[in-house]
Amino acid sequence: MSALPDPPGTDHDALVGTLLQLVRSEPTSTRASLTERSGMGRTIVTQRVNELIETGLLAETGRGKSTGGRAPREVRFRREAACVVGVEVGASSIDVALTDLAGRPLGCHEQSWDVARGPDATLDQIDVIIDRLRTAHQPRAVPLVGIGVGLPGPVEFATGTPVAPPIMPGWDGYPVRDHLAARHGVGVWVDNDVNVMALGELRAGTAVGVRDFLYVKVGTGIGAGLVSDGRLHRGTGGCAGDIGHIAVVGGAPQPCRCGKRGCLEALAGGAALARDALACAENGSSPYLSARLGDDRPALMASDVAAGARSGDHTCADLLKQAGEQIGRTLAGLINFFNPSLVVIGGGVALSGDLLLASIRHSVYALSLPLATRTLRVEMSALSSQAGMVGAAFTAIDELLAPRQLPGWTHRLCRDPLPQAATA
Amino acid sequence: MSALPDPPGTDHDALVGTLLQLVRSEPTSTRASLTERSGMGRTIVTQRVNELIETGLLAETGRGKSTGGRAPREVRFRREAACVVGVEVGASSIDVALTDLAGRPLGCHEQSWDVARGPDATLDQIDVIIDRLRTAHQPRAVPLVGIGVGLPGPVEFATGTPVAPPIMPGWDGYPVRDHLAARHGVGVWVDNDVNVMALGELRAGTAVGVRDFLYVKVGTGIGAGLVSDGRLHRGTGGCAGDIGHIAVVGGAPQPCRCGKRGCLEALAGGAALARDALACAENGSSPYLSARLGDDRPALMASDVAAGARSGDHTCADLLKQAGEQIGRTLAGLINFFNPSLVVIGGGVALSGDLLLASIRHSVYALSLPLATRTLRVEMSALSSQAGMVGAAFTAIDELLAPRQLPGWTHRLCRDPLPQAATA
Repeated sequence: MSALPDPPGTDHDALVGTLLQLVRSEPTSTRASLTERSGMGRTIVTQRVNELIETGLLAETGRGKSTGGRAPREVRFRREAACVVGVEVGASSIDVALTDLAGRPLGCHEQSWDVARGPDATLDQIDVIIDRLRTAHQPRAVPLVGIGVGLPGPVEFATGTPVAPPIMPGWDGYPVRDHLAARHGVGVWVDNDVNVMALGELRAGTAVGVRDFLYVKVGTGIGAGLVSDGRLHRGTGGCAGDIGHIAVVGGAPQPCRCGKRGCLEALAGGAALARDALACAENGSSPYLSARLGDDRPALMASDVAAGARSGDHTCADLLKQAGEQIGRTLAGLINFFNPSLVVIGGGVALSGDLLLASIRHSVYALSLPLATRTLRVEMSALSSQAGMVGAAFTAIDELLAPRQLPGWTHRLCRDPLPQAATA
Repeated sequence: MSALPDPPGTDHDALVGTLLQLVRSEPTSTRASLTERSGMGRTIVTQRVNELIETGLLAETGRGKSTGGRAPREVRFRREAACVVGVEVGASSIDVALTDLAGRPLGCHEQSWDVARGPDATLDQIDVIIDRLRTAHQPRAVPLVGIGVGLPGPVEFATGTPVAPPIMPGWDGYPVRDHLAARHGVGVWVDNDVNVMALGELRAGTAVGVRDFLYVKVGTGIGAGLVSDGRLHRGTGGCAGDIGHIAVVGGAPQPCRCGKRGCLEALAGGAALARDALACAENGSSPYLSARLGDDRPALMASDVAAGARSGDHTCADLLKQAGEQIGRTLAGLINFFNPSLVVIGGGVALSGDLLLASIRHSVYALSLPLATRTLRVEMSALSSQAGMVGAAFTAIDELLAPRQLPGWTHRLCRDPLPQAATA
């Protein structure tokens, strides 16, 4: 008898955290509504709300509806009081958003970039993008208070360093958090890209309000983010959700970059689709893909398959359907295991067409247990390609608004009334 | 922006919960040590500790070591202040324990029982067992304050009712919680048996202190309990962990009771081992099993296979190894997905010998990603066959000690100093 949950924190922290959550979840609140919703005493609510107003995180907005006597004062979350940056590093891209404290983008920048160029060149590039975004979009007097980063590999969240990432040569153990924190002088949080996308969907996308769900990214590789009871499940080494190297039942024994055969990623990821597309172009089974291939284009991409399927090429459609079936077959077992109420499908390959989603759904509903699919939804990502940078911003926002963090940065908040650019 | 975690509760609740957790996790504490460990103010800790002493949940035990001035008073959790009952219903057994508030058994009863006899007969039998245990082992003046129950099927935890349980005919939607609560006049909590066992391992078994782990029960069927960040992950419909019907990669297409083919349970569960044992006895490939079969024993059991392996029968050893390989192969993918630091193997078949564990380990370490197995342990259950009833007791204890529940029952606590039987 010695293992019990961590203590929930000190009394003051717990109160402030509760109130902040309640205020953030509604457009406006009154001290009376907060007293009712929190179950706390009236005096304590008033004290803590006043403290939060003093920090600049809450503001009074005027008077609400009267229920008899004098109309009560309304308070709201001042999302414009500070900015954060969300950075999503993909295998072949960098997406950066400057957002307010509610994750709403004030400005974005997306560009191609090969993550294999290594951490020094990549972080230099990120520094330049952040500086440009701040110059163009950060309202004067509104401070930048945090940066969230998603990386395409396993990350030790506590230290913000990549751990043996397979597609990021040179990044193993690199102090990504410390580099950015030193350069920009703010708190920095680094996580796996799929976790970051799952958080984006949870806070501002398809999974808003959902307690248990899976986010599945189908890009060059395939990965999942797990949310258990409203919280990211990162796993013991921060590598939960690595579904790309699960062997597929009844799948072909295609060699995988991990050294094994028949992994999901080797059958249904973007790289696998590109490989199969090239074969179909060369053997003539797909007129569309053969026509795309040429001297100036010696290789094909997953997006060519999606475009071919949309244009009516049967072989392209079959490739997507087969990929969806392999993904759905794997997810069926994971759904029995995790029992989510929602599976959100995102990532470049998934977003390129509906055929893949239809095929995934078909396999999932055919192969999962009836009890596990009773109320299950399988949906496309609402945030689409923005899931990463918005989720990365929330990786920082959620940490910044944890009560233990507040004393460290709220003294910098902008207390001016509504700067123009930040409330657009 | 409207989905945020549930508020952590009121200030008073949070304080009491924190203190109770801290006191339970150490043999003795002082107000000063609690102040330091909780981060709360000294006055508040003293107030709340005094409140908990008044309820009878804490007691002062004397004086600790002085660090200068007068030696401080020590407090401890009064586990003897009340009793709970843990009930584990299996497919073919009922195990019941009467325990103190630390889950330590004061008395146990284990018997064979066919769950297919239905809820009325089964609950009547449970009532009789509880009454007998209370008469024999419940100290006078120590009240029974709760009952926890594990059932071999999906359970809606909020209502305490089975949901379409496949091996429990007549139990679907039966108000198990309400029946027991009305009969015994105490709070009752009902959960899936594998969740209950996982909780037992977390609180008092192999997984004490572990944040992320899987409990895998290999019995007649195969199921898993998931713990994420120190909390049971029950899933959206309470049926998380249903791994018995995941299709096994490269497995034989054996028909399964679920209607599909090649499910893990149909290849490696206790019923599958019994089926294969009969075939080996009949075709003569196992002298041991042939000798066990006879006119008075027309069928064999998984335990016969384990006994045969122990006695040196090669076919029996192969059957166990193959079962372990199928289980390990399935777990390998789930370990990539969930990234636990520990897998605890329990259940009747698993406990019958080490061959199965060795074979599971071999497959898991060969087939999971290196990152996922870097710090992974695969261990046998320490609680063994007691995991169910001890875990069921903790299902009640954890709920009872949640601060919101305390006002409902602590007025009944025994405040006498140390009744004899309960502190043995």
